[in-house]
Amino acid sequence: MKIVYSEVHRGHAGAKEFVNGDFVPMYEKPERMDMILERFRAAGFGEMVEPVSFGLEPARRVHDAGYLDFLREAHALYQREPEAAGDVAMPFAFGMRGLRQQPGPSAHAKLGHYCFDLSVPFVAGTWPAIETSCDVALTGGKILRDGARAVFSLCRPPGHHAMRDLAGGYCYINNVAVAAQAALDAGAGRVAVLDVDYHHGNGTQSIFYERDDVLFVSLHGHPDQEYPYFLGYEEETGAGRGEGHNLNLPMRWGTDWSGYGEALDIAVGRLHDYGPDVLLVSLGVDTFKADPISHFKLEHEDYLRIGGAIAGLELPTHFVMEGGYAVAEIGVNVLNTLTGFEEAA
Amino acid sequence: MKIVYSEVHRGHAGAKEFVNGDFVPMYEKPERMDMILERFRAAGFGEMVEPVSFGLEPARRVHDAGYLDFLREAHALYQREPEAAGDVAMPFAFGMRGLRQQPGPSAHAKLGHYCFDLSVPFVAGTWPAIETSCDVALTGGKILRDGARAVFSLCRPPGHHAMRDLAGGYCYINNVAVAAQAALDAGAGRVAVLDVDYHHGNGTQSIFYERDDVLFVSLHGHPDQEYPYFLGYEEETGAGRGEGHNLNLPMRWGTDWSGYGEALDIAVGRLHDYGPDVLLVSLGVDTFKADPISHFKLEHEDYLRIGGAIAGLELPTHFVMEGGYAVAEIGVNVLNTLTGFEEAA
Repeated sequence: MKIVYSEVHRGHAGAKEFVNGDFVPMYEKPERMDMILERFRAAGFGEMVEPVSFGLEPARRVHDAGYLDFLREAHALYQREPEAAGDVAMPFAFGMRGLRQQPGPSAHAKLGHYCFDLSVPFVAGTWPAIETSCDVALTGGKILRDGARAVFSLCRPPGHHAMRDLAGGYCYINNVAVAAQAALDAGAGRVAVLDVDYHHGNGTQSIFYERDDVLFVSLHGHPDQEYPYFLGYEEETGAGRGEGHNLNLPMRWGTDWSGYGEALDIAVGRLHDYGPDVLLVSLGVDTFKADPISHFKLEHEDYLRIGGAIAGLELPTHFVMEGGYAVAEIGVNVLNTLTGFEEAA
Repeated sequence: MKIVYSEVHRGHAGAKEFVNGDFVPMYEKPERMDMILERFRAAGFGEMVEPVSFGLEPARRVHDAGYLDFLREAHALYQREPEAAGDVAMPFAFGMRGLRQQPGPSAHAKLGHYCFDLSVPFVAGTWPAIETSCDVALTGGKILRDGARAVFSLCRPPGHHAMRDLAGGYCYINNVAVAAQAALDAGAGRVAVLDVDYHHGNGTQSIFYERDDVLFVSLHGHPDQEYPYFLGYEEETGAGRGEGHNLNLPMRWGTDWSGYGEALDIAVGRLHDYGPDVLLVSLGVDTFKADPISHFKLEHEDYLRIGGAIAGLELPTHFVMEGGYAVAEIGVNVLNTLTGFEEAA
């Protein structure tokens, strides 16, 4: 399997995030990639490929143009604020309901308009990482269209929390959504996104919520208990033309393979019925029992099963990296998903 | 002049706020009250009065019932979260556009649904302080109705940033809005709120935006440059029946008396034309040149002028404390406003 990857993500580092009342070093850090690459190398898995640049037009197909301008300019804008503290731009006041829905010129207004949480800091290297991560996903999509059975886009930063015009949850551009749209634009009639990240892919859901050419299926921690809290409920089934094209399978804290496997069966059944031309997989491995910010109880070998179940769909399959934070174990879980897939494919 | 005040606010202390990329001890702290009280004592100014309890019904007239429940329960709810860190409840993910507008059961969801920034922490003493601060404003209103020419409600926490169902900017219950509504409910035909706090009173504006029985006039730092960023523009003139009943006079950083005095003349003219039965003044003194978080350049003696201009309206006048953070100087500026008023009244 080809693995698309770039070192550019390393510049997106050094910031803190706000979790449960405290600032902590970001869980979403460059070392996550090292752990995956190391494990691939040790296992002799995959063929590394550099991304090529597609420009921003593909991202504009699913994101607001002003939002993309903001992502590119946020760090520089913030540095020009008279009271900017340090290198890291973060929002502190949010443009919620009842407040003006057009941001003024200040960096604070733009940050508070275009971000929905405190885990999307902007340092100098953030924009190059965002742009390259999107190219990693687009390059993977191209490889698939060129005839590969499967490909892995090792994206960082991840993307599935990013909405049409909102960053959050470590995510800026929604890589999997951009790749899904690119697949359609290149001729696919319908695509499906299976999101196995522990956290609900609120961004992907929201971007395609009113469309019937993208089926979104997500297995995740229940929003009653878990981030992102504000989307991910079972009753969210799509709207308009998209009605019936969104399937959320939220699960309670403590879910292990017995519950997860059942939900995965349902997800795979739905994907099979939909019969997409391409399957994209938002691959998060933060469902692992030792993940520091999550509460499922999957074991290493369960990822082999997840890969196998996905392979059973017999579809061109584009794995796109999302979350996974138990740094030492992230590599084996990603590798197991992909080898589980290859062995069953 | 009677000064309504309670010591209950002291329990609302010890938390930090997030400003410009960093956590700092809250500028809005109990010592602010000490500086004011000390200066009153030194000058032999005013007669101290304890608030009486009015219950929550008056607050329900301008706030959402679910929001008030949240304010009361937020601290306890957060303590029950398995991963609650420390005593202080704060939001970290916000329920912005495109996300679900009904909060789930978790403390994080409720905090992110009902707060719009990172300066409204909840400690154990926060709710008693909120409730009492509202009673302080309501007691002031009652004193006015009983025949006083003027009264000062020394509220803490302040209120003018609090919206119908959103806390932010150190504000939880909008004390001045509750008092304005109570005045109407007690028989006033029309009331006016003059907001001289450095920051735009987005909450008060928004609560009364579609009403013609409350005129809102605000002098403040321009939202292009200044918190709360998302409201406070000149073009916000009211809506529906309220059209023409909202006057924003935003001013740029560095404004001193020459610019401020002009804007105050316009504000006073508009208030005079409206001819309310009662005038409420959101009294912030963070327009002072040495205020640590603000950028106007008023001098101590300018507050005498502000008080004098307000007195010139010859209206029953209810001063309600809002912001002001240059701790050592806050007392003299509040005292000057009130003595400027009394000398001209």
